[in-house]
Amino acid sequence: MNFNVAPVDRSLAPQLQHKIDTKTKPVGALGRLEDLALRLGLVQGTLTPHLAYPHLLVCAGDHGAAKAGISAYPQDVTWQMVENFLAGGAAINVLAEHAGLELVVADAGVAHDFGVRPNLINAKVAPGTANYLEGPAMSAAQCAEAMERGAALVRDIARAGCKVIGFGEMGIGNTASASLITHCLTGAPLAECVGRGTGLDDAGLARKRELLRHAIDIWEERSDEPLAVLARYGGFETATLAGAMLAAAEARMVLLIDGFIVTAALLAAQALQPAVLDYCVFAHRSGEPGHSVQLAWLHAKPLLELDLRLGEGTGAALAYPLVAAACAFLNDMASFESAGVSGKG
Amino acid sequence: MNFNVAPVDRSLAPQLQHKIDTKTKPVGALGRLEDLALRLGLVQGTLTPHLAYPHLLVCAGDHGAAKAGISAYPQDVTWQMVENFLAGGAAINVLAEHAGLELVVADAGVAHDFGVRPNLINAKVAPGTANYLEGPAMSAAQCAEAMERGAALVRDIARAGCKVIGFGEMGIGNTASASLITHCLTGAPLAECVGRGTGLDDAGLARKRELLRHAIDIWEERSDEPLAVLARYGGFETATLAGAMLAAAEARMVLLIDGFIVTAALLAAQALQPAVLDYCVFAHRSGEPGHSVQLAWLHAKPLLELDLRLGEGTGAALAYPLVAAACAFLNDMASFESAGVSGKG
Repeated sequence: MNFNVAPVDRSLAPQLQHKIDTKTKPVGALGRLEDLALRLGLVQGTLTPHLAYPHLLVCAGDHGAAKAGISAYPQDVTWQMVENFLAGGAAINVLAEHAGLELVVADAGVAHDFGVRPNLINAKVAPGTANYLEGPAMSAAQCAEAMERGAALVRDIARAGCKVIGFGEMGIGNTASASLITHCLTGAPLAECVGRGTGLDDAGLARKRELLRHAIDIWEERSDEPLAVLARYGGFETATLAGAMLAAAEARMVLLIDGFIVTAALLAAQALQPAVLDYCVFAHRSGEPGHSVQLAWLHAKPLLELDLRLGEGTGAALAYPLVAAACAFLNDMASFESAGVSGKG
Repeated sequence: MNFNVAPVDRSLAPQLQHKIDTKTKPVGALGRLEDLALRLGLVQGTLTPHLAYPHLLVCAGDHGAAKAGISAYPQDVTWQMVENFLAGGAAINVLAEHAGLELVVADAGVAHDFGVRPNLINAKVAPGTANYLEGPAMSAAQCAEAMERGAALVRDIARAGCKVIGFGEMGIGNTASASLITHCLTGAPLAECVGRGTGLDDAGLARKRELLRHAIDIWEERSDEPLAVLARYGGFETATLAGAMLAAAEARMVLLIDGFIVTAALLAAQALQPAVLDYCVFAHRSGEPGHSVQLAWLHAKPLLELDLRLGEGTGAALAYPLVAAACAFLNDMASFESAGVSGKG
């Protein structure tokens, strides 16, 4: 693995800010849309950014720990939901289409044989991770393979001209995995990183907390090195997403960061290549409490707060129209001069 | 004036909730989008709502008090910005087109002769209101005329099949007017209702507060009756919008409520016909502090918080994709049964 994400060149910032400030509106009146427009210009290094071929990549994987009772749903729901994606019936199908995002679904490690399917990218490392309640979820080689597969996937998408990509995931048990990754990479207390996921009740939540405490306790050579953490607790979908993010930033795409699990992947990616954050737009604040821990640690303020806790990239899809609107105002609005409107008295 | 807004019939709520809850996602996982979907179904009285022919109505008017120094911009900016709307260069042109909203611009009372223009609806009551620092902004008859014109405008739009309408405004000085209306109709202290508008500095804000205090002090027959308040302090654009909102609710449209000035119009509308609130979606929380006073008084939680303070309906345009997304998931997502996905264990 050899990633090299360059920070964005900020030399265009004054010209971009001038362009934003001379649009026919009071200075700053488009609020956070103006910050977004500036970021789009910086990422693309232009005063006229273009969000070409927007995509949304959903990676799916199964978790060996899922059978231990860390989720409200049975593990089979992972492959059933992938089938739902392929049939067009899931939330992310509807919301991605509505937002004009091309949906790409990848099997990063689902415990199911889908056969060869026209709409499903086979990036399967193995049929599910091992159980981190007993040992590492994956080997270092598997973790590297997943990241490489994610990067390769994005490089293919980049070749088609894509300049903006959202990330989503599916995997029963992956909020538990994300809680462990978040605890290890941010240092926040484990209890603050653990939530109800898809809908555990109080007893289920208490059990999940106990199991995850156990998962931490049995890791003897505990580390905060991102690849070690990903391999110990990650899902294949999470590692694949981390590689995909790094490749997307290398290709100077705008990255739409979804909720808790996607941000766990980003925590690992930015620990490896901190400049990846220059390319990120944080789509929403999830209802899962650990997501707020992550966002605070990253000093990130997301665009939306809609109490979503679905995953699949749904928050990224819902936020994308705001990103596109920021691009549109920067390109298409008149200036005070061009419109013949008087300035501030 | 004879408005009669019926409350929405809630008898369909259990069926709508069941439809929402059996979609392939954990119960409640789409957060506030689920509340929106329920509202759309109730407004239209159907399990399959359709947001046909979405529109955005921008009403413009001038304020007699604008020359007294209550705004950072000269009064001519009102007509210049209307010209900008007609030329397609303003923020609302770009954002409405981006959101798929048909933009309708109405001159409710601009102090300028536009002549006959194909894209401008002439709903002019008079060339600007009188100065409320000296007496009433308009007569009771003018206020009624503005509301009637707004209602007629929306009834025309309704005949084309429109089922969702956003509201916006333009008028130099209209945040000051909205502050006065908000103070009178909510009872909140005047100082909490007054902000910097398009960008007053500290001295300008202090002067605006003094002037508005004076405007309140000289109203001898002070009242909280909505038509009296609208006539005393309103803009023609505000009164036109209030009438437009009532007619839109009568036509069972979904109403997208923008920021501070539009919500001032809604305060008057709902004081006349409280059921209008059943039809409202609150698009965003403006950076103008009085908007938070209004939202708290209405117990309304807006969809977006992006520090916008531009007006024109820009917040409504930016929120519309979320409303359309709620409609799309309700109509197009698969159910657990139809997709063959297992339920909660």
